[in-house]
Amino acid sequence: MTKYFTEDESVDTVNGRMGIDADDRAAVVMESLVRHLHSFVKDVGITQAEWDLAIDFLTRTGQICGPERQEFILLSDTLGISMLVDAINHRRPTGATENTVVGPFHVEGAPIRRMGDDISLDGKGESCLFAGQVRDLDGHPIEGACVDVWSDNADGYYDVQQPDIQPRWNNRGRFITGADGRYLFRGIKPTAYPIPDDGPVGQMLDRIGRHPYRPAHMHFLVTADGYERLVTHTFVEGDSYLESDAVFGVKEVLIATYDRNSDGSGTAWSSQYDFVLTRGSS
Amino acid sequence: MTKYFTEDESVDTVNGRMGIDADDRAAVVMESLVRHLHSFVKDVGITQAEWDLAIDFLTRTGQICGPERQEFILLSDTLGISMLVDAINHRRPTGATENTVVGPFHVEGAPIRRMGDDISLDGKGESCLFAGQVRDLDGHPIEGACVDVWSDNADGYYDVQQPDIQPRWNNRGRFITGADGRYLFRGIKPTAYPIPDDGPVGQMLDRIGRHPYRPAHMHFLVTADGYERLVTHTFVEGDSYLESDAVFGVKEVLIATYDRNSDGSGTAWSSQYDFVLTRGSS
Repeated sequence: MTKYFTEDESVDTVNGRMGIDADDRAAVVMESLVRHLHSFVKDVGITQAEWDLAIDFLTRTGQICGPERQEFILLSDTLGISMLVDAINHRRPTGATENTVVGPFHVEGAPIRRMGDDISLDGKGESCLFAGQVRDLDGHPIEGACVDVWSDNADGYYDVQQPDIQPRWNNRGRFITGADGRYLFRGIKPTAYPIPDDGPVGQMLDRIGRHPYRPAHMHFLVTADGYERLVTHTFVEGDSYLESDAVFGVKEVLIATYDRNSDGSGTAWSSQYDFVLTRGSS
Repeated sequence: MTKYFTEDESVDTVNGRMGIDADDRAAVVMESLVRHLHSFVKDVGITQAEWDLAIDFLTRTGQICGPERQEFILLSDTLGISMLVDAINHRRPTGATENTVVGPFHVEGAPIRRMGDDISLDGKGESCLFAGQVRDLDGHPIEGACVDVWSDNADGYYDVQQPDIQPRWNNRGRFITGADGRYLFRGIKPTAYPIPDDGPVGQMLDRIGRHPYRPAHMHFLVTADGYERLVTHTFVEGDSYLESDAVFGVKEVLIATYDRNSDGSGTAWSSQYDFVLTRGSS
């Protein structure tokens, strides 16, 4: 192999350059990255103009990032990479609840509420009762599990996106299970919303004929001592975007039923979902 | 194939989402990119912490870019992708001079000099006579070819990197060939220098045990009506970094001889290199 650049041996030339003092894991990762990126460039015969466009796209993606926006995570999400990384790092036995990505809207330290409390503080949206049980793989209820939930409001925005309009902690809360492992709270039936699409990622989606919408969902972060941390969302059955989630978060088993209430209970809907945790460290 | 995300079918799920109104070429490029990136993530089993690091790296790479710095081009260069894109877009017949990347330091509109003029305006460095001929593939001299040259100074900096220290157009100039196709100018023997290594790309190189140096080289941009634009550099034979150019610019045929002069001509070195152009549009 030549030490000089040739088209045919481009991968070996670049990877042959790793130093003897390279970090072992970094060397493995970079060798694979170089091999796949060179294959990509060769497979499709990237033109100079296209590569200039790619450089410009990546630069703009970095430059639009700020305290309120992470466009590279959005890019990773929309290419299915965030869900893939999540999947290969959370392979679980049959029966355990599937993981998903945490997303950009979780906030640490939501108020701890009493079972049955309403997390909808602005009174807008279709009321919904959320209930279920946190169990282990053997079917035993888990006591002392923390069920941290968050969702968007009736207009499709999380409270942190509208700090001047929504009350703080609107549609958020934490619930601690008792001996029966059950959780119960009131909130609203979540609504579908678009991811931010006024930047480079939105332009990319438009170019390949994709819409920016996420199907309606309720986020759950369930933790308990001695169990693996579960990050997931449940999706609203029947949502038009279930089969085309812009960030590929939907797994079939995470689609929850939403039943219309006609019992005069005061909530329009009920949604029931149980969570099954695996043993591990949280 | 399911419309919902699964680890096994992640590529098909993402690529199956392309819209019917997708731009044809964008769809081809993105399908291949998604396939290769997912393979990369699966092949090395990227952890969540590693992916978080990658997102942070890409974000910092975008944010350090500005009028004076393009860190994503530097990243592309150091992974051999810039040279690969250049190579697949400039496949030439045997005998034609090989292309290389233009690099970040070319400036349009350098002064047109007379044959034999000295482009070193600061008088620093080892003087060198550069000479050669611009020909076509049949060996005929090309009249009216523009030979645009630029190099770093004795300290390894281009004039645009030191606007307060170096005279404008130091070590730059354009020369127009006559009927014999020959060019001749004075300058300095170029020096090796490091690419900017105080940012994310420098950290990446350090992590995989690579140095940031480029072997000494003289840049040439040769254009002539009816011929394909030639962008190349010639390298100084014997340079310690010839086999480890940080941006993989070296091709064996572009290594030029540098002979010590002992004829009292007033220049310490002579370097001779001929350029062979192919027919095409410039």
